[in-house]
Amino acid sequence: MTSLFDECTAVRPGAADGTFATELRDEFTIVNGHPNGGYLLAVMGRAAVAALGEEDRHVVGSTTSYIAPPSTGPATVVTEVRRRGRTASQLHVVLVQDDEPKVEGLMTLAALDDGPPAWGHVAPPEMPDEETCRAATRSHRSPITGGEPPMARVVAQAFDPATLGWASGAPGGGGEMRAWLRMADDRPFDPLGLLFAVDALPPATFEVAMTGWVPTLSLTAYIRARPAPGPLRVRFRVGTIATGRADETCEVWDGADRLVAQSTQLAALRMPPAP
Amino acid sequence: MTSLFDECTAVRPGAADGTFATELRDEFTIVNGHPNGGYLLAVMGRAAVAALGEEDRHVVGSTTSYIAPPSTGPATVVTEVRRRGRTASQLHVVLVQDDEPKVEGLMTLAALDDGPPAWGHVAPPEMPDEETCRAATRSHRSPITGGEPPMARVVAQAFDPATLGWASGAPGGGGEMRAWLRMADDRPFDPLGLLFAVDALPPATFEVAMTGWVPTLSLTAYIRARPAPGPLRVRFRVGTIATGRADETCEVWDGADRLVAQSTQLAALRMPPAP
Repeated sequence: MTSLFDECTAVRPGAADGTFATELRDEFTIVNGHPNGGYLLAVMGRAAVAALGEEDRHVVGSTTSYIAPPSTGPATVVTEVRRRGRTASQLHVVLVQDDEPKVEGLMTLAALDDGPPAWGHVAPPEMPDEETCRAATRSHRSPITGGEPPMARVVAQAFDPATLGWASGAPGGGGEMRAWLRMADDRPFDPLGLLFAVDALPPATFEVAMTGWVPTLSLTAYIRARPAPGPLRVRFRVGTIATGRADETCEVWDGADRLVAQSTQLAALRMPPAP
Repeated sequence: MTSLFDECTAVRPGAADGTFATELRDEFTIVNGHPNGGYLLAVMGRAAVAALGEEDRHVVGSTTSYIAPPSTGPATVVTEVRRRGRTASQLHVVLVQDDEPKVEGLMTLAALDDGPPAWGHVAPPEMPDEETCRAATRSHRSPITGGEPPMARVVAQAFDPATLGWASGAPGGGGEMRAWLRMADDRPFDPLGLLFAVDALPPATFEVAMTGWVPTLSLTAYIRARPAPGPLRVRFRVGTIATGRADETCEVWDGADRLVAQSTQLAALRMPPAP
């Protein structure tokens, strides 16, 4: 049985060489019917892997520039291999809709181990168990979305109650969210699933201040290892907010406590005037 | 008088619309005669600013994918404006040499304040004063380069002696370098100078293990504010080394203790076998 995640991120060869047709799905929309950024990353990553066509090459590095928000419905992914290397290959990948580039990306594809890091183990954050987090999350309704976004049907997010202030309209002020993440149909996460995971949470800036939507300008993700089974733990935090922009860093640990993915993004936001 | 940095990063309009001609200079080479990565970023950033042609728009976000190492000599920067926005514009920028793409980038251009951050002040690291660091740095000769690289004639790097083990072939093991940075001709750093600064130091992995060169696969830089005068402080550290790749994070503070630039990169390296 195909999982809903695989179904929603499917691509098929398009009319021209290196192009892929896809259908952006309602299941991965958040506010205003726009698809989630991490979901778009997974779709583009799947096209990049198919375009390279080399066994056991995964997206290990990806940067995407968000030019305009795509809508649900048909879209095309246009790929071009810039370098085919012995240990790493690089591609240019663009998500096109209505003949306009919507998301443009540079991706690096390479092999991925599933062993421990050679240096620099980063421990996962302390947080309550998944069940406790799930119960706390259920008891909140987001003032942003007026409830659970459609995406919740595909991916279950269970937030650490200590970082849930935003969901009641009272940001905790720490600029950090922590959550357990699992597919609703219990499909295990793979490297493409991690590409989704690094931008799956609401803006971490919501734990600083309730603002309107916080559009990502640029998102960079690194996938560091093939994940072990089990739910992911995700820590998403704000660095600095300056000149109307925030940097936000995401770290993802697998079921074996290994840091398997990281991302950093620059997002535009206007802080509300101080009261 | 034009500073050497401005002279070395100069671009002039090229034959076609949106293209710029430049000359990659010996002064910014490191090992093997290849130009420094941060220097290439500054050259490409200067072309992007010229291509957009809007006053007070700086490169605030940049990701570059290193496809092949360029050489010194003539090169072309090909730019294309993807989105011209009210608060942010996005460009695709490629450094071409011998008709081949060498470095491909996605850049975001916007205004930059010079005030304090709205949220999230990050304090600069504690380190000895610049003169102490300069003296310690002079007393080391790098086994990698057999002395000072040509770049030292343009930019003076004064390392915290606590992070100089690598320069005597004895990595300290902390995976971190700290340094003062100033232009040799005392030109103040501006936003383009910061683009250079975020990738000006030797690989931070040298403080983990002495290896061969550590080629950058992808580098992402954010410029957060216009820098105040004075030398910069730079902290460059390794996150995790896994599957033959390291992530390295750089932070840059200005003369007024403000975090003005950040970068993260994914680089390829092979760890030596454990002894």
